[in-house]
Amino acid sequence: MTELLKNFVAGQWIAGAGAGTLLRDPVTGADLVRVSRDGLDLAAAFNYARNEGGAALRAMTYATRAARLADIVKVLQANRDAYYDVATANSGTTKNDSAVDIDGAIFTIGQYARWGAALGDHHVLADGACIKLGKESTFASQHLLTPTRGVALFINAFNFPSWGLWEKAAPALLSGVPVIVKPATATAWLTQRMVADVVAAGILPPGTLSVICGSSAGLLDQLQPFDVLSFTGSADTAAAIRAHPAIAARSVRVNIEADSLNSALLLPDAAADSEAFALLVKEVVREMTVKSGQKCTAIRRVLVPEHLYDAAAQAISARLAKTTVGNPRNEAVRMGSLVSREHYQSAVDGIAALSQQTSVLHDGKQHALVDADPAVAACVGPTLLGTRDPDSADVVHRTEVLGPVSTLMPYRNLDHALTLIRRGEGSLVASVYGADPATLAQAGTALADSHGRVHVISPAVAATHTGHGNVMPHSLHGGPGRAGGGEELGGLRALGFYHRRSAVQADAAVLDAIAAAPFTL
Amino acid sequence: MTELLKNFVAGQWIAGAGAGTLLRDPVTGADLVRVSRDGLDLAAAFNYARNEGGAALRAMTYATRAARLADIVKVLQANRDAYYDVATANSGTTKNDSAVDIDGAIFTIGQYARWGAALGDHHVLADGACIKLGKESTFASQHLLTPTRGVALFINAFNFPSWGLWEKAAPALLSGVPVIVKPATATAWLTQRMVADVVAAGILPPGTLSVICGSSAGLLDQLQPFDVLSFTGSADTAAAIRAHPAIAARSVRVNIEADSLNSALLLPDAAADSEAFALLVKEVVREMTVKSGQKCTAIRRVLVPEHLYDAAAQAISARLAKTTVGNPRNEAVRMGSLVSREHYQSAVDGIAALSQQTSVLHDGKQHALVDADPAVAACVGPTLLGTRDPDSADVVHRTEVLGPVSTLMPYRNLDHALTLIRRGEGSLVASVYGADPATLAQAGTALADSHGRVHVISPAVAATHTGHGNVMPHSLHGGPGRAGGGEELGGLRALGFYHRRSAVQADAAVLDAIAAAPFTL
Repeated sequence: MTELLKNFVAGQWIAGAGAGTLLRDPVTGADLVRVSRDGLDLAAAFNYARNEGGAALRAMTYATRAARLADIVKVLQANRDAYYDVATANSGTTKNDSAVDIDGAIFTIGQYARWGAALGDHHVLADGACIKLGKESTFASQHLLTPTRGVALFINAFNFPSWGLWEKAAPALLSGVPVIVKPATATAWLTQRMVADVVAAGILPPGTLSVICGSSAGLLDQLQPFDVLSFTGSADTAAAIRAHPAIAARSVRVNIEADSLNSALLLPDAAADSEAFALLVKEVVREMTVKSGQKCTAIRRVLVPEHLYDAAAQAISARLAKTTVGNPRNEAVRMGSLVSREHYQSAVDGIAALSQQTSVLHDGKQHALVDADPAVAACVGPTLLGTRDPDSADVVHRTEVLGPVSTLMPYRNLDHALTLIRRGEGSLVASVYGADPATLAQAGTALADSHGRVHVISPAVAATHTGHGNVMPHSLHGGPGRAGGGEELGGLRALGFYHRRSAVQADAAVLDAIAAAPFTL
Repeated sequence: MTELLKNFVAGQWIAGAGAGTLLRDPVTGADLVRVSRDGLDLAAAFNYARNEGGAALRAMTYATRAARLADIVKVLQANRDAYYDVATANSGTTKNDSAVDIDGAIFTIGQYARWGAALGDHHVLADGACIKLGKESTFASQHLLTPTRGVALFINAFNFPSWGLWEKAAPALLSGVPVIVKPATATAWLTQRMVADVVAAGILPPGTLSVICGSSAGLLDQLQPFDVLSFTGSADTAAAIRAHPAIAARSVRVNIEADSLNSALLLPDAAADSEAFALLVKEVVREMTVKSGQKCTAIRRVLVPEHLYDAAAQAISARLAKTTVGNPRNEAVRMGSLVSREHYQSAVDGIAALSQQTSVLHDGKQHALVDADPAVAACVGPTLLGTRDPDSADVVHRTEVLGPVSTLMPYRNLDHALTLIRRGEGSLVASVYGADPATLAQAGTALADSHGRVHVISPAVAATHTGHGNVMPHSLHGGPGRAGGGEELGGLRALGFYHRRSAVQADAAVLDAIAAAPFTL
C-alpha cells in the first residue's frame, strides 16, 4: 500500500486512523500517497498551537521572526528538486507551471523576510502618529498593532499547495501568530512535504506550524474569538464558512478569496495592428494556459471593441492552436493536466454551462494529448468561447471555470465595457491594454473599486510587466464581492489581518515608555 | 393621535402604513410620536440611494464633501435646543447626559469636516507609496482607496440616537458613500428629527441621506455586493446578521459593535490613599451613572488588588449613594431613566442574573426616585455588585447589563488581573489606573490585543484625560471577539470601511496620470 502521510500537530507527527484518502497522479492515474486525519485530537492540536506556539512566537521580535523566514527560504531552496517532482506527480504540472507555485512561494517568503527585518527588535507595531487629545494637555492617543493571541487556520485551495501555504504563513509567522494549514486533499502532498522539511530543520518553536491533511470537518468548531481563519476556495463553501457559529457568533476574523471572473480589457483606441492588441492576445493566451488555467487570477473574460471581435478571436485561437497538451514529463508538452479527474469533470461541465450562451471559437477537444490517455488523464485543451451579446449572456459573468477557458466579448464604448466588467460583481484582477497614459489611467481608476488589483499593460512595459495573473507580494491580492472581500499580501499590509489595532490613550510619559520598552506580550 | 414620523427615502418623505409603533416618555409614560415603515418600497429606496446618491457624492471631491459636513454642523447647532427637548422626552436623559449624545455628535462631525478638508480636491486616495516592481523597470505598484459604489446601511442602537448616526455618517459621507439609517425604534425620534433638519437645509444631494423608522425586517435582503452594513446592538442579533445571505454569500462588508464587558484595572502598587485609587473610584462612579450606564463603553468590571477590595467597595458605594435618580426635568436629578420600560426590565433581569454569583455592595433599589413614579418610570438606581471569587463567577465576564451596574472583583497579581480581563473575550475599552509610567505602559500594552481602546489614567492627566467611556473621534472605537470585531472612528482610519483598496500596477507614466487627474468615478 502507498505511504500514509502523517499530520503534524501539538509538536508531533501523528498518523490518522483508517486507510485514508488516496492521492493520484492526474496524468497517469497512478497511486501516490494517502492522507487521513481521523482520530486526531483537534482540541489539543489547536490549544497547543494557540498557547505554546503563540507564546513562543510572541516572545520573539519582528526581526527574529523575519530571520526564521529567511531560514525557511534556505530549507525550501535546498529541497526544491523534490518539490518539482511532487508537483509533477500530484498536480500534473510542467516545470514552468510548477515554478509558479514553488518558486513563487520562495520569492514571497524571501520578501517578507526582508520587509520583516526592517521592523526591527520590537514586539508591537505603531500604527500612525501620536495625536494630542487636548490643546494644553499631555494626554494623547497612539494606535498600536499587537499580534492576535490565537491561531491562524488556513483552509487552502488545490491549485497552489506551495504558494497558497506560504503567501499566508509568511505574514502570519512574521506577525507572531502560529499557523495550522489544512491543504486541499487532492494536492496535499506538497504542502505536507514542505512543512515536514521545515519542521525537520528545527527552525520554528514547537506549535508554530502544524499541518492537518484530509477532511476539514470540525476544524471550524475549534476556533475561538482571537483566532483567525483564511479560506481560499469556492464561493459556496465561503458562504457556509461565514454562517458557521465560530465566525457568526464568536467574531473570528475571516479572510476569504473565492470565485473571480477576471477581465482583460483592450481600450477603444487600439487598432488590430497596434502593440496593445498584440499584448492583449499574448497575455490572454498565457493566462489561459499557465497552470492549465487553474489560477484564481486567470483571465476569464476578454473585452475588445466590437470591430475587433473577429480579429481577436482569430489571433487568440491561432496561438492556442500551437499549445501542446499532455504529460508534463514530455519536454514537448507546454500545458499539463488539471489536478484530478474530478476537477477535469468539473471543468468539462463548466465549459458545457458556458456553451449554453456562447459559441466555441477555439475548441480544446481538438488538441490530441501527448503521452497521455484521454480516458485517464485530467487534461483539458485550451478553449476559447465567445458571445456577441454579452449583455444577455449572464452565465459568463458569474460562472468561473477553473481551467484553460476564457470567453471573448465585444463592447460598444468604454462605459459599456466597464458595465460588463462590473457584472462580475467584484473580481481579483482586471488588466487594461492601451497606449495612451491618460486613457489607461482613467480606465484603471474606474476599475479599482471592483478589483483588488488592476494590471495596466502598455508598450512601455511590454517586456517588464509582471503578468496579469502573477501575484506579486508587494501588491494586494483579493477582491470585493464574489471574489470574497478578502485582502492578502500588499507588502506589510498583510500583517494587519494577524494584528489587533488598539488606541492607547495615555500621558505622554506612558506612551514614551511603550515606545521604548520591548515588552513581551 | 400622536404624530406619525415620516421616513425619508428615494428623495421623498413617506409615511408608513398603519398605526405604527408608539414611542413613549420613559419617565412619565406619556405618548410622544409614532413610527412605521410598513409599505415602503425598500428596493426603490436602496436603488435610489445607491445610484442617485452615490453618483452625486462621488462627483464631489473630499474637500467638497467635507464642506458639506461643516454645513451639517451649523444646522445641528442651530437646532440644538430642540434636540435636547427630544432627548429628555424620549431618552429620559439629564442635560449633561443628552450632551454626550448631541454635542458628542456635533464635535465628531466637526472633526471629520476638518480632517476631510485636508484631503483636498481629489476623488481617490493614495494608500502608501508607489513601489517599483523590478530593478530596471518603470513598472510599479500604487495602492488606491476608492469609494465603494454602494450604500451604507446603519442599523443603530437605542442609546445613541444622535452620536450613533453621525459618528458613522460623517466618515461615510466624507468617503462619498450614501447613508441609509435605521435607528432603534425606542429612540428613533431624535435621529429622524436631525435627518429632517439636514434634508430641509438642502445641504446634501438627493439620495445621500435616508432614514427608515420602524422594523428592520427585510432591510438586509436589499444589500448587494458593494454595499456595507454597520450594526450596533446585541451579540445575538450580530450573529444572525453575519449568517444572513447578504453577508454570508454576497460578501457585503459588515462592521459590528456588540456586547462588551469593559474593565477598569487599579494596578497592584496603588494604595488606598493613592491618587490612582481616588481616580479609579471617581471614574467608576462616573461611568456607572452617565447616561444611566447605557453606554457600550461603560465600566462593567472593576478589578482591584485583593487587599483593596473592601476599601474600593466602600468608596464607590459612598459616592453612588449621593446620586439622585429620577425625572431629568428636575434640576436636582443627576441620573435620569433608561430609554424604555422594556429596557428597564432587561436591566432588572440582568442584575438578577449577575446577583446569582455576586453580592450587592450598593443596592440601587435604595434610591428613592425624584419626581417619578417607580411603577411607571424606567429608572434604575446605580447598583454595585461584587464577588470575591471572580475565577468561578463566569456570568460577570459574559453578561453585559446596559444600565447603571458594575461588578467589583479582587485579583492576586497583575497576571491574574489580565487573565480575568481577557475572560471578557474581547471588549471595547479597558482603563488602567496607576502612577508609574513603566507599569502603566506594560499593562496598557498587554491589554491592547483584546481591546479596541486602552485608556490609561495617571495623576499627570487627572484633570485632562478624556474619560474611560468617552469616544474620541481620533481613537479607534470597536473591539475584538464578543465586542463584535469592528473598527469605527480612529480619525481617517474610519474611511477605510467605505473605500475599496486596490493595487494599480502600471507604467510610471500611467501612475503619474492617476495622481494628477481628478477623475470622477
